[in-house]
Amino acid sequence: MGQIDQARKNQITSLVKKVARSEGVSVKHIINGLKDGTIVIPANRLRSIKTPCAIGKGLHTKINANIGTSPYYGTVSEELKKLKVCVKYKADTVMDLSTGENLVHVRKAIIENSPVPVGTVPLYEAAVCARDKGYSFNEASVDDIFEVIERQAWEGVDFFTIHAGVTKKVLSLLKKHGRTAGIVSRGGALIAGWMAKNKKENPLYENFDRVLAIAKEYDISLSLGDGLRPGSICDATDKPQIEELKVLGRLAKRAHEEGVQVMIEGPGHVPIDQIEKNMSLQKKYCNNAPFYVLGPLVTDIAPGYDHISSAIGAAMAGYYGADFLCYVTPAEHLGIPTLNDVKEGMIAYRIAAHSADIAKGLKGARKWDETISKFRKARDWKNHIACSIDPEKAAEIKNRLKTEESDICTMCGEYCPLKVMENK
Amino acid sequence: MGQIDQARKNQITSLVKKVARSEGVSVKHIINGLKDGTIVIPANRLRSIKTPCAIGKGLHTKINANIGTSPYYGTVSEELKKLKVCVKYKADTVMDLSTGENLVHVRKAIIENSPVPVGTVPLYEAAVCARDKGYSFNEASVDDIFEVIERQAWEGVDFFTIHAGVTKKVLSLLKKHGRTAGIVSRGGALIAGWMAKNKKENPLYENFDRVLAIAKEYDISLSLGDGLRPGSICDATDKPQIEELKVLGRLAKRAHEEGVQVMIEGPGHVPIDQIEKNMSLQKKYCNNAPFYVLGPLVTDIAPGYDHISSAIGAAMAGYYGADFLCYVTPAEHLGIPTLNDVKEGMIAYRIAAHSADIAKGLKGARKWDETISKFRKARDWKNHIACSIDPEKAAEIKNRLKTEESDICTMCGEYCPLKVMENK
Repeated sequence: MGQIDQARKNQITSLVKKVARSEGVSVKHIINGLKDGTIVIPANRLRSIKTPCAIGKGLHTKINANIGTSPYYGTVSEELKKLKVCVKYKADTVMDLSTGENLVHVRKAIIENSPVPVGTVPLYEAAVCARDKGYSFNEASVDDIFEVIERQAWEGVDFFTIHAGVTKKVLSLLKKHGRTAGIVSRGGALIAGWMAKNKKENPLYENFDRVLAIAKEYDISLSLGDGLRPGSICDATDKPQIEELKVLGRLAKRAHEEGVQVMIEGPGHVPIDQIEKNMSLQKKYCNNAPFYVLGPLVTDIAPGYDHISSAIGAAMAGYYGADFLCYVTPAEHLGIPTLNDVKEGMIAYRIAAHSADIAKGLKGARKWDETISKFRKARDWKNHIACSIDPEKAAEIKNRLKTEESDICTMCGEYCPLKVMENK
Repeated sequence: MGQIDQARKNQITSLVKKVARSEGVSVKHIINGLKDGTIVIPANRLRSIKTPCAIGKGLHTKINANIGTSPYYGTVSEELKKLKVCVKYKADTVMDLSTGENLVHVRKAIIENSPVPVGTVPLYEAAVCARDKGYSFNEASVDDIFEVIERQAWEGVDFFTIHAGVTKKVLSLLKKHGRTAGIVSRGGALIAGWMAKNKKENPLYENFDRVLAIAKEYDISLSLGDGLRPGSICDATDKPQIEELKVLGRLAKRAHEEGVQVMIEGPGHVPIDQIEKNMSLQKKYCNNAPFYVLGPLVTDIAPGYDHISSAIGAAMAGYYGADFLCYVTPAEHLGIPTLNDVKEGMIAYRIAAHSADIAKGLKGARKWDETISKFRKARDWKNHIACSIDPEKAAEIKNRLKTEESDICTMCGEYCPLKVMENK
């Protein structure tokens, strides 16, 4: 039995106990969330995850970090280094999005070494498999696709992105309404290309029961991908996006009824004034299933700095109800991220997630801020730096220039307001 | 006559014409804004500013960059380099916050070389002057303070931060209610220290008419400083902050009646859920005078990355009504910023300001996003990069690894969704 079925029988698993403890919530809160579909615990039943997590209502905002090779770049050892960086900066999950030749080895190594849940987009391997056999993904059969899903499930993947919402109707709306940036989801584009070539309905939509059967067998959480996510703020909240969201809501309902844990993926690129609306529409159409958003980026003009343009959107999204944030690195739209890009993305998203948790009034979230502020006021530099989100970086900036007195910094010197006000 | 008095007589100055043109609004809009105090044009009548700007209602969100020496660091040439970086990344104004020994030379050089309006906090020079004379700021006389204000006005400073709101009553509230971080404003701390030592009311508050007379003579815009701005999210929107805001609102009314342009400074550190409220309280208590905010930072835990923690707050503040954003660099809370820190702060704030303008529906704001998205969709890398906020950085990331085909990047390679969907 999976986590949902056990929750339905009020059986308290060790996984539930563990995540309840790490969240500081009651076991009952987690059980109720599993029952009503507002919480998922991504964990393949074959895996033993050192640091599992629960995602959803009333819990800390979680962060996923995408790693993995591309057709041009990446080795097993490089990806394992990225995994280490993700874990060091406290990613709650990682997704292996490899599309390089070595993707099977990379995935196995990541699953073996990851202390956190691992997700994938099985379509990517299906596309690479087709290429390896000398044809294109458009010529892959439905069985080819499910063979990959089944194999990855058996290998221990904890959650799958499944682009089942790109239906014929959604694509006809896309054609009718047009878009500035079109489809920017790799999975969405692969499926849409396959549908166009084969003149058939989306195979993941048509065979959603097969997806559910595999997910159920391994207790894999499904993350219903948004193939139509806006890739420009000009396309945000348009008809194709919303129609797909409704499809995902219906599929999520079926999944939950079958005892399969499910979350919904969301945009993308969304201007600030539409973020709250996007969050509430998802909750409405998807029965409050956990919402997993990519950013959103609040402007399109910042390649090189999209960890910042998207951290703005992510913090707001978290505040307005997103449960799970997929990080964006400075390399977004430009190339595959380096180790440093991964770090920069992680830090930006921890800032976003933490500030969302503060704003949501999550119990204990302010404690960190209160603690560091007290050290700051006391000009206790050692603890101020140790308590900061990236002590190495903070120390580097503090120490690059010296001051005569040790209790002030090079900005204000003797005019330090905290020192001026001391004992007053 | 200053800009307000001329507007009251419906006289259209060349400055008004120039800012109306650069904003894409009517001259009438600017004139009405000057009349009702919702718009300021910081420009000392002795200065000829190459790129003046108007700040306020219905206009683009503006960005100020703080530069200047500290007691520990900075030379004239270094500060001029910082000025160049600010201008390159499109700061609308700069503030020279020098407190080093060379501050007079630095200020003169910045005023001489700045194509944008220059602001200062005269209290800083008053404190440095006192030190040079061998005593502390607490021993400075009221005339000492006004001598500095007068001299800086005559040198051509375009706007002054005046901490006139730190009254006895505000400080008694601070004492009564307590705070996690206390006073974190340098000007606020200097004034509070002076008041405690001299057992007198705030000299800038008591002598506000003298401030107004100088501002009026040179048509200097006043920026009423918030000495009680929260320096921790735990202190946000507390009684001392709000009481000071009300004082500033009353002083702003007096200034405007006297024909002195005025804006209000705001926080600081504010959690996401309190940003909208902070913006609406300012508009309410300050007769819709332009609001100039520092960030706000949405969490206290990110020294080293406070350009990001504050860009989140700045973007939201801009959307909810802030008119003018003071950038924060990665060096905030740790030391004096380097040239690179200045650049990082500027870029983060341009992202924040632009995304606020998009969300406010400012005419034409989306055009940039639409243009870059079209280049992105067409995989026109040359123009995509040229159109981005920092073409050098975007090119560096794009070019650090090569692809065989020139129309894709190292992330998706042949699985580029835009390429997959081409002609579909």
